Amino acid sequence: MKLTDCEALDRADPLREKRAAFTIPAGMIYLDGNSLGVLPRHVPERVMAVAQQQWGETLITSWNDHGWFHLPRKVGDRIARLIGAPQGSVIAGDTISVNLFKLLAAAAKMNPSRRVILSDSGNFPSDLYVAQGFRDLLDDGYELKVVAPEDVMEAIDTTIAFTMITEVDYRTARLHDMKAVTAKAHAAGALTIWDLAHSAGATPVNLAGAEADFAVGCTYKYLNGGPGAPAFLYVRPDLQDKVQPALAGWWGHEAPFAFDLDYRPAAGIIRNQCGTQPILSLAALDAALDVWDDVGMQAVRKKSLALCGAFIELVRQRCERHGVTVAGPSDINARGSHVSLHHDQGYAVMQALIAANVIGDFRAPDMMRFGFTPLYTSFTDVWNAVGILARILDNREWDQPQFLARKAVT
Amino acid sequence: MKLTDCEALDRADPLREKRAAFTIPAGMIYLDGNSLGVLPRHVPERVMAVAQQQWGETLITSWNDHGWFHLPRKVGDRIARLIGAPQGSVIAGDTISVNLFKLLAAAAKMNPSRRVILSDSGNFPSDLYVAQGFRDLLDDGYELKVVAPEDVMEAIDTTIAFTMITEVDYRTARLHDMKAVTAKAHAAGALTIWDLAHSAGATPVNLAGAEADFAVGCTYKYLNGGPGAPAFLYVRPDLQDKVQPALAGWWGHEAPFAFDLDYRPAAGIIRNQCGTQPILSLAALDAALDVWDDVGMQAVRKKSLALCGAFIELVRQRCERHGVTVAGPSDINARGSHVSLHHDQGYAVMQALIAANVIGDFRAPDMMRFGFTPLYTSFTDVWNAVGILARILDNREWDQPQFLARKAVT
Repeated sequence: MKLTDCEALDRADPLREKRAAFTIPAGMIYLDGNSLGVLPRHVPERVMAVAQQQWGETLITSWNDHGWFHLPRKVGDRIARLIGAPQGSVIAGDTISVNLFKLLAAAAKMNPSRRVILSDSGNFPSDLYVAQGFRDLLDDGYELKVVAPEDVMEAIDTTIAFTMITEVDYRTARLHDMKAVTAKAHAAGALTIWDLAHSAGATPVNLAGAEADFAVGCTYKYLNGGPGAPAFLYVRPDLQDKVQPALAGWWGHEAPFAFDLDYRPAAGIIRNQCGTQPILSLAALDAALDVWDDVGMQAVRKKSLALCGAFIELVRQRCERHGVTVAGPSDINARGSHVSLHHDQGYAVMQALIAANVIGDFRAPDMMRFGFTPLYTSFTDVWNAVGILARILDNREWDQPQFLARKAVT
Repeated sequence: MKLTDCEALDRADPLREKRAAFTIPAGMIYLDGNSLGVLPRHVPERVMAVAQQQWGETLITSWNDHGWFHLPRKVGDRIARLIGAPQGSVIAGDTISVNLFKLLAAAAKMNPSRRVILSDSGNFPSDLYVAQGFRDLLDDGYELKVVAPEDVMEAIDTTIAFTMITEVDYRTARLHDMKAVTAKAHAAGALTIWDLAHSAGATPVNLAGAEADFAVGCTYKYLNGGPGAPAFLYVRPDLQDKVQPALAGWWGHEAPFAFDLDYRPAAGIIRNQCGTQPILSLAALDAALDVWDDVGMQAVRKKSLALCGAFIELVRQRCERHGVTVAGPSDINARGSHVSLHHDQGYAVMQALIAANVIGDFRAPDMMRFGFTPLYTSFTDVWNAVGILARILDNREWDQPQFLARKAVT
């Protein structure tokens, strides 16, 4: 693969004009959209309008007149289209971890005779922490069974109450087969909870097609909703009215402004809401989703695979002799939209890359992680990033005190 | 009381210059700061800078370089000063309802041999819903005992695991005696959880002085943090390391970026964090708190009582003959910073007031609610508001179809 190939791919890219919708700092090759998506150009103005006109001028009436109260449903419906979910099955709000707790409780109550939660060691650790907190709170015999990602299918048996799996591994990009896992779980009488943190906006998730029971996901990665943007939650339509909300709050009440002393859950997805949501952050997310209105997830997937494939090919051509290896499945179709590279000096190499304005991140013990976001990453970006990586390795540019010394992350 | 008295009170008001820090719509008398505080003038610019410069330009590095990751602690410490809490005992984030769930779980685990949660019927209903959700999730004999507000003291006995009380009643403004309730609870071997939704920024809360165990609170009312701004949570310092987080997430982990599979709670207040927080909303709140930097809560309380007292006096003078009565305690010192008025046509009267640009709100069955926010409400506002209310009642201006027809709130 040569530069001219990458340039030709960019010219033929049906998504190429989307890049102009985003603010990408001059000179930066940003390959960390799997951690924090870049700023859509029009978002600050929209947030400013919410602050100045809606909060500042119409104040409390904006809850109705500017639709603040319904924003979690509106945003949920916009996300639903991108993850193969029907309208009315997704609600935005809270964080992934809090939403996951809600779903653990819901799934546990729906499968009350079983006590095993199945997850895998490639799950994002916070998900495992949430399950541990749930288990210890209930103190009722729940067991969190954590197997290797490749052993998930085999571990599904009739002891499992529900699975709790992140579809795309945050380090290796390994993609679980949602349909196969869900089918096997259902056959064994288990429910499924999916975490779509690295899927939503990156892969063509089909929750309805897979008959998935529950899901949570993230909006600040591929959906570009802004730092810490509200998460989302999905419940399969036929299960919605069986959910007994553990986090029972007024936004999930049948009649929130009746101020009754007793909780009566709203019908449908709404009951999964709890407290009042942060409107400025939710409005930024709503605005960010405008970019997606004319985008199909099949086109995104096609470009994502091509970007990842080009990166892997170029790394193999130009960096393999320095001991760089590609993490995760060799089958590109079994991967999400990022690529992690093992290297024994991965930390220092990533610091040198960042100093050269190629932004990825590092995941212990030895992984350099690069995210490919089809709406704004070009094939020329990939070419240039690998060129700089090869130069850093060829010249041992990483071997300097400022790159070798590990900074505390917090 | 005459207009000239109100004008004299405004001239003598040591907080009078604070009003200029806020955007108050021209011609509006805003008496709903107990629901949504008005916009501090400088906030939109600060939010814009976070979006454009921090998110837009420095992207992922802003988590460290612009302090996003520590914002919940920084904001928590700023709020701590206003509620009589030591530094390091308050964390901002999530919603009141979610934070309350965390504290219910923490308190339950600290008092494991008891099963009664004591609350009162003047509590904000969402708090009661959260306790009901907790009780039903655990399904372990927990009982939510709800008594009348005036019966709380007597109901504290050795069966109570913990109290869950909102200090200021959202309808009547009745103020609980935090110190007395806490002392009696402690003597009975019970813990206390306080909801400061209508207290923070309105009354001189003294969590440390009262030896309160736990608290949650709201920042979008008197603290003017913006619609749905993140809530806060307090844990008494000597209890912090005894908390077993039920909502266990990576932001509460001892080493969040080590990505260990096992949860180990951070020391101190940090363990009460769960997932990634909405930075735009949190940054708006941080900016909003600037207004408080040179404000003492005793001065706020003094003016709050004077505003409420003037309102009550003027309502009695000018509206009592129309059947308007003041809800809640007659002792002004036993009240928070809002006043609710009973009137059998309260809904229609409030709609007529809003049409006249006097903004309060209505709480079923018959209460018109008016909030007095010492940083931006003047005594002249009070004079004018009561004048318009008296006119509406004198002329039966409320008796029109557009005011009588109840709108659905959502």
